[in-house]
Amino acid sequence: MIIVGERINGQFSEVERAIQNKDESIIQDLALKQVEAGSDYLDVNVGTAVPSREKAEAMVWMIEAIQAVTDTPLALDTPVEAVMKAGLEAVDNPPMLNSTNADPNQLNEYIELAQKYNASLVALTMDKDGVPNDVAKRTELAGNIVMAAMRKNYPFDKLFIDLIILPVGAMQQQPPIVLEALSQLQGIADPPPHFILGLSNVSQNTVERSLINRTYLTMCMANGLDAAIVDPLDDELMDAMITAELLLNEQIYSDSYLQAYRKSK
Amino acid sequence: MIIVGERINGQFSEVERAIQNKDESIIQDLALKQVEAGSDYLDVNVGTAVPSREKAEAMVWMIEAIQAVTDTPLALDTPVEAVMKAGLEAVDNPPMLNSTNADPNQLNEYIELAQKYNASLVALTMDKDGVPNDVAKRTELAGNIVMAAMRKNYPFDKLFIDLIILPVGAMQQQPPIVLEALSQLQGIADPPPHFILGLSNVSQNTVERSLINRTYLTMCMANGLDAAIVDPLDDELMDAMITAELLLNEQIYSDSYLQAYRKSK
Repeated sequence: MIIVGERINGQFSEVERAIQNKDESIIQDLALKQVEAGSDYLDVNVGTAVPSREKAEAMVWMIEAIQAVTDTPLALDTPVEAVMKAGLEAVDNPPMLNSTNADPNQLNEYIELAQKYNASLVALTMDKDGVPNDVAKRTELAGNIVMAAMRKNYPFDKLFIDLIILPVGAMQQQPPIVLEALSQLQGIADPPPHFILGLSNVSQNTVERSLINRTYLTMCMANGLDAAIVDPLDDELMDAMITAELLLNEQIYSDSYLQAYRKSK
Repeated sequence: MIIVGERINGQFSEVERAIQNKDESIIQDLALKQVEAGSDYLDVNVGTAVPSREKAEAMVWMIEAIQAVTDTPLALDTPVEAVMKAGLEAVDNPPMLNSTNADPNQLNEYIELAQKYNASLVALTMDKDGVPNDVAKRTELAGNIVMAAMRKNYPFDKLFIDLIILPVGAMQQQPPIVLEALSQLQGIADPPPHFILGLSNVSQNTVERSLINRTYLTMCMANGLDAAIVDPLDDELMDAMITAELLLNEQIYSDSYLQAYRKSK
């Protein structure tokens, strides 16, 4: 699994305050903890900590704070192209762009942006009509994303298709739709692109957030999910993820397989 | 999910002693606890508690002890036909026969036995050559089982195909093979038969038994497993199972969905 640590996000009050107070230590502490817990990328999201006109500056400040303590690649998480571009100029290592939707204009522009910066790209299976309610439309949009990448010779090992999981508490028909779409899309190309989810969304506004997150993560992994934006500081989530890798024969069994995984990171 | 409680099995030392000492209270206590935890069937297995010639008698004694306290259907778990037949004569409610292999002679005989007693039947995807090492042979044997049931007009809603999970610690390639076979077999008939696993086998001789069991259970459920022989007294396993049902849209969400499930049982 490719793990994107989700914790450096202005939606969390601790991070919001750090951005507002220019307190690097909180950001850096979260960066180091998430790297130690096994993050392959660190998500960087300004959230609503500052007004729109200050977001690009805040993004650059966060990136520089993180890069002062780790060279783990960053996932630049913003819907605003100007903020994304400011971030791209500030990163030291090839980042992940999170994200584009599947509308041809934005998709093509972001593929070119990713190529220019040697970046990975998260592409969402949604378009101007929003998030699809069914399997067929999600797989159709995933097909459009794959075709756009092929036309531009963008490599599939840098392409992360996000099928968009919605909260189970509000839209209970959605989790099985995403599972089925994942399963159907495994044959879309050989080798296929990556499949990623912003996992925590599935448990929004539920009481059993960690239980729902880790259960859905392992179910998705059984259907071909190979990347996830998660809280790597949730030990039970990581235990479940490592165990699912073991059961997919992607980790070698030993009695101390959990510790061995963590040591390898 | 159809839950078969696994705890009344002579392989557990507590049950072994109960059988040897004819101590009904231990058996009855396990029966009631497993029913309360959500068992749809109670497995009854003499194990090696008594010599072969006494097994039929022990099976009948266990059945009568359980039936004195609950009318939950029983899963008669024995490889010995004479013990199975003795059990069938003793049960009050239509039981589950656990199990036949896929060799035509035994399979046909057990289908007829199940029909005679209005019983459900667990059929293993193994034959005289043992447990298959690959997906293709497992699905072939599952196909043979389905064909045999069709020829005898045995209803699919009573047929439980067991793909046989082997220990991940010893045979690490096996868990993904069973996942893939499960996925491929979903289209074998419409509606399909049930798919069941003796789950705890996956974690034999591992340190993290409960974690491995519950992780594999939810992964299998994401691929169509709809029945399992498990320890229903493992609360974390049951929480994961209930949550997977929620995420498959088979339970209705509420903040107290875990308690609501348990209350409904």
